[in-house]
Amino acid sequence: MSAILGEKIKICIFGESHGRSIGGVLDGMPSGEKVSYDEIKLHMKRRMPEVSEISTVRYEPDNIKFLSGIVDGYTTGTPIAFEIDNVNHNFDEYSKFNYIPRPGHADFAAYAKYGKHVDLRGGGHFSGRLTAPIVCAGSIVRQMLERKGIQLASHIYSIGDIYDDALNVICVDEDIMKRLQSETFPVISVDKKELMLEAILSAKEEGDSIGGIIECMITGVLAGIGNPIFDGLESKFAHAMLSIPGVKGIDFGSGFDGARMRGSENNDPFTWQDGEVLTTKNDHGGILSGISTGMPIYFKVAIKPTPSIKKEQRTVNFSNYKQETIKVTGRHDPSIVSRVAVVVESLAALVLGDSM
Amino acid sequence: MSAILGEKIKICIFGESHGRSIGGVLDGMPSGEKVSYDEIKLHMKRRMPEVSEISTVRYEPDNIKFLSGIVDGYTTGTPIAFEIDNVNHNFDEYSKFNYIPRPGHADFAAYAKYGKHVDLRGGGHFSGRLTAPIVCAGSIVRQMLERKGIQLASHIYSIGDIYDDALNVICVDEDIMKRLQSETFPVISVDKKELMLEAILSAKEEGDSIGGIIECMITGVLAGIGNPIFDGLESKFAHAMLSIPGVKGIDFGSGFDGARMRGSENNDPFTWQDGEVLTTKNDHGGILSGISTGMPIYFKVAIKPTPSIKKEQRTVNFSNYKQETIKVTGRHDPSIVSRVAVVVESLAALVLGDSM
Amino acid sequence: MSAILGEKIKICIFGESHGRSIGGVLDGMPSGEKVSYDEIKLHMKRRMPEVSEISTVRYEPDNIKFLSGIVDGYTTGTPIAFEIDNVNHNFDEYSKFNYIPRPGHADFAAYAKYGKHVDLRGGGHFSGRLTAPIVCAGSIVRQMLERKGIQLASHIYSIGDIYDDALNVICVDEDIMKRLQSETFPVISVDKKELMLEAILSAKEEGDSIGGIIECMITGVLAGIGNPIFDGLESKFAHAMLSIPGVKGIDFGSGFDGARMRGSENNDPFTWQDGEVLTTKNDHGGILSGISTGMPIYFKVAIKPTPSIKKEQRTVNFSNYKQETIKVTGRHDPSIVSRVAVVVESLAALVLGDSM
Amino acid sequence: MSAILGEKIKICIFGESHGRSIGGVLDGMPSGEKVSYDEIKLHMKRRMPEVSEISTVRYEPDNIKFLSGIVDGYTTGTPIAFEIDNVNHNFDEYSKFNYIPRPGHADFAAYAKYGKHVDLRGGGHFSGRLTAPIVCAGSIVRQMLERKGIQLASHIYSIGDIYDDALNVICVDEDIMKRLQSETFPVISVDKKELMLEAILSAKEEGDSIGGIIECMITGVLAGIGNPIFDGLESKFAHAMLSIPGVKGIDFGSGFDGARMRGSENNDPFTWQDGEVLTTKNDHGGILSGISTGMPIYFKVAIKPTPSIKKEQRTVNFSNYKQETIKVTGRHDPSIVSRVAVVVESLAALVLGDSM
Repeated sequence: MSAILGEKIKICIFGESHGRSIGGVLDGMPSGEKVSYDEIKLHMKRRMPEVSEISTVRYEPDNIKFLSGIVDGYTTGTPIAFEIDNVNHNFDEYSKFNYIPRPGHADFAAYAKYGKHVDLRGGGHFSGRLTAPIVCAGSIVRQMLERKGIQLASHIYSIGDIYDDALNVICVDEDIMKRLQSETFPVISVDKKELMLEAILSAKEEGDSIGGIIECMITGVLAGIGNPIFDGLESKFAHAMLSIPGVKGIDFGSGFDGARMRGSENNDPFTWQDGEVLTTKNDHGGILSGISTGMPIYFKVAIKPTPSIKKEQRTVNFSNYKQETIKVTGRHDPSIVSRVAVVVESLAALVLGDSM
Repeated sequence: MSAILGEKIKICIFGESHGRSIGGVLDGMPSGEKVSYDEIKLHMKRRMPEVSEISTVRYEPDNIKFLSGIVDGYTTGTPIAFEIDNVNHNFDEYSKFNYIPRPGHADFAAYAKYGKHVDLRGGGHFSGRLTAPIVCAGSIVRQMLERKGIQLASHIYSIGDIYDDALNVICVDEDIMKRLQSETFPVISVDKKELMLEAILSAKEEGDSIGGIIECMITGVLAGIGNPIFDGLESKFAHAMLSIPGVKGIDFGSGFDGARMRGSENNDPFTWQDGEVLTTKNDHGGILSGISTGMPIYFKVAIKPTPSIKKEQRTVNFSNYKQETIKVTGRHDPSIVSRVAVVVESLAALVLGDSM
Repeated sequence: MSAILGEKIKICIFGESHGRSIGGVLDGMPSGEKVSYDEIKLHMKRRMPEVSEISTVRYEPDNIKFLSGIVDGYTTGTPIAFEIDNVNHNFDEYSKFNYIPRPGHADFAAYAKYGKHVDLRGGGHFSGRLTAPIVCAGSIVRQMLERKGIQLASHIYSIGDIYDDALNVICVDEDIMKRLQSETFPVISVDKKELMLEAILSAKEEGDSIGGIIECMITGVLAGIGNPIFDGLESKFAHAMLSIPGVKGIDFGSGFDGARMRGSENNDPFTWQDGEVLTTKNDHGGILSGISTGMPIYFKVAIKPTPSIKKEQRTVNFSNYKQETIKVTGRHDPSIVSRVAVVVESLAALVLGDSM
Repeated sequence: MSAILGEKIKICIFGESHGRSIGGVLDGMPSGEKVSYDEIKLHMKRRMPEVSEISTVRYEPDNIKFLSGIVDGYTTGTPIAFEIDNVNHNFDEYSKFNYIPRPGHADFAAYAKYGKHVDLRGGGHFSGRLTAPIVCAGSIVRQMLERKGIQLASHIYSIGDIYDDALNVICVDEDIMKRLQSETFPVISVDKKELMLEAILSAKEEGDSIGGIIECMITGVLAGIGNPIFDGLESKFAHAMLSIPGVKGIDFGSGFDGARMRGSENNDPFTWQDGEVLTTKNDHGGILSGISTGMPIYFKVAIKPTPSIKKEQRTVNFSNYKQETIKVTGRHDPSIVSRVAVVVESLAALVLGDSM
């Protein structure tokens, strides 16, 4: 149940951080869709940037081996399986579950569910590393969507208390979209980007981490995509986004801000322009009652600060109920927000591809 | 696809606002579960309060006819079907789709999807009235959960800019839970309730409406319920909540506020107490990586202001592309927030029942 | 889980033989499909013929109330719910589970699964009466398929040892199809029909029952419908047909006979005719590896003799482990084979509609 | 859609005959289940016996690489992915779809579905080779079932017109079960085995192939497993078995033979023995109305003769509509029946594991 998403286009992912490999199966892609490996690599790289001041993750080249479903650069219509080796895996090492859960991590909850055979080395199946197959699969679907005139991009809406400039959600600037799609730290305002990086470095210097918000926008979706009630676009996007490790919230259009408004403020008047029905503003976020309206779709995703911090934290050894303290060592990003951007876009592509 | 939710315990709902009846099928309930019709009625009544200053909806007694699956007050294990008559339905009346979409409503999106055979009289399948079968089914599952020691309640976190007192999310007060479960306008602070009602009446007097936020809390869920990645509790709650008409966002625990924090603030230290592993605070909202931790689960749901307002709004007749203005007449609630509370609880019960 | 079939077009059925009503929800039908109630009634009547020498079932007029999803004779695109009242239901009567299972019935297995709260009055949810909603839903989908040039029909392949004439499976005679579609006892050969009726009456006179085989054929399905492996047409048809009470087997094309053949006999050579690729014979039954070939689809469904017989049978009271004998009283058909024909066609329509 | 089977325990398979590798993901296995690689190898070998007179397939050692979900010989509870390299694959070779469909193969149907990008080299995704991941996954589930007292075995019921001795379906002989479980050509009667082998060799000598029937039996399944209507055990077994390449039919218990019987013959009287409710014979095959009765489960699966034969066959080149003849060259088994036995058992294990 846990590892499969979608109805018509399905993604199934597998792997543990320290297992032999991670990967996925993308099932339901039509045949004859062109697949550019370069595009996939571009997005994979955005998820796993070079080591820098703000990203210090262990080196994993993320070379993808495609096992099936693509021949001569085109989909065959049958399942597309792919595998990414875990370079540093140690397949035989005993899992050494130590009964001392790290605050903010799944350790304790996972033990409660799986018992002592759970594999939590490096986060196991709960590791952010499992987002790599999502990006790979999403990039394939995304190429198909782009050929239908659909563009997906995202920017860092905020890091801590630093907010990026507002996106034009009525008529998204194509050049900005293009730029954001290729950046590893996608921000609209260059000045705000500097402030965000400072905030991250400041957290890092204190052995701490910092959270943020990603805003994703999608253009070119015609009106009438989605369903009412349980299979609405909002439900499907929300389901997908909340599966990303560290994501704790989502809202569409004016979202939580709209909950403070009057109807007369929040409602978007209809108008027409060049034979198309549009709204004069876009507080509804391109979706009404689960169905697209033809306006740009956008939503915000709240990402908690990375739980792995060098600061001392209180915890408990639940094998002997002794109080302990813990400092999470190793190389961890002081903020994963920028790396989540491409994961959000990839899941959005999977959801949209599944809904069309 | 659109009308079914769940894997083990499934709910399928049907009906249009002006059709013969609405209803649902609850499939997968174990046999031998006691069903109290009084409890169901209590929750149905919370969704559809008596006519009052803030609720002026058309009168629908919401009498439920159970068609199958319950004998002598116990579930038989086979599908539980039920039907709620639409008192004022006019089965033969032509649907008269008028091509003039009301701002904030699904009208235009639904037409784009379904074409001219869509039934939008009274909101059709998109009407908030479709939440009645959700409450009915959820109330059945809820009774089963209560017998397992699980309690669900919710309060109005905010109406416009008026915020209720904070909930104790570490150790929820049982008396407050009990009180909130039976109220049609559930608020922790009596003073704030007055201010909220004033805000709603003020909107009403101006022919306007107002949004708000519902916070739902669940106690008694053991650690280890849920799944990593795509079938996590957060994904499933989010999927369900975003299917409620008017809901535009959800966050868990510290949620969007947590995205502004440092890791050292947001992480919840583990401790132990009476042989149980707990956290000393609860910013994670009772769920980590999709799996319950044993702490109270809580989340916030953002509800947009009712789109039906008496104020004049701009729209367009898309059969002839003429600009129009519209005032939505009829009796509409200036705020649906209070009525959504029990819908949120009911869906939460359905999701939890499905996950255990 | 048990009550829902399909992925894109889903049918959910509910009800017990002695409950208030039975019915179903058909979800996923496109909007704007014309629905003829007369056609539905025609097929409902084939499932429930007038009382005659071979059919003596209790009188149930099977009037269908449509609750949602159809306006002015067209589908709206939202779920189509319908209900069929149980005329003789006794809603309050205690279920009186008597612990004496009837041979050949689900009684004991159902008790083992559901325990004492199971409702087995009149067969409960296991009653053949539950095929009525299947026929209703299937008839709606069938009308859509017919508009696409697809015809479904079936004949009684055998009753006991009496076999009907062979169907032309290479080029099905349209007039025969048309005739079979409207008959309550569909047989190709008038002579064999007489012999079959005699065999049924002979069994009836002895207080016994008799089994038989239905052969279903479908014309007009283009090549390329279906999927390899787990979602193949053969898998989906088999899944659906084996859900009909009393059905114990299915085979496609030459089927079990083909298992005795050589490859050179069983393989169907390809040829072309008027620009179409055909096979010169049709032992593959119109499906190869789960995908349609464009040739007529046909399969046989084995139906066991009605388990309800007047003859004395041995059984056991498993509340006190005492050996008992039982004679099943009441009015029961000596053969249900003829009535299953339209159920097979209806499920075939649902499966095909779901696969296209 | 096509590549995933199951609800609670899911198997997803991927790969093409000439692609880089084939494999699968087994999702939903509980954690802490012991996995014996030797047992898996044993069953893999039964599917792919040494080259012999009756089996001349290309050499593929079928070494399985487990990629995730198993640590130190125990399941972790997260998805178990595995990969089997295609030794002779030629990843870059162009697929050379030649428009000349082989009779009895999926070639034409697959082209109709997928178009020119389909990969049919060596049968592609339609190859019997795709049953290898099924056996691997099934063997893991089977080990879990065996620890619960459930045994699965099968024998060759027939090859052409040669029938094996009858199975004792009331009380299956454990020694025979054990023997059959480890044989590559599982037959109850040694004499019949000789005759079957002769029949296969005779077909082979004529460049032909021959079909047969596998009978599978399962012991130790308690009463009450399964569901009525659409998710019954019979539906689920049938769905799974019909997905095996070459399988064209299935029946349960007396099956097609029962369709010739009277009710008084076919009904199985209940009795009790040592505190258990049993039937005195087992024509119902251990399942009534989709639910297990506690008696041994058994069913027969019809397998068509291998379509690949050396004899000349008529076909057509549908790129230019020219009539052609074809002799299928290469090394092909004159009968795949014996190799299908372990595939049937493995799928049965997957279905049962999913239903419990």
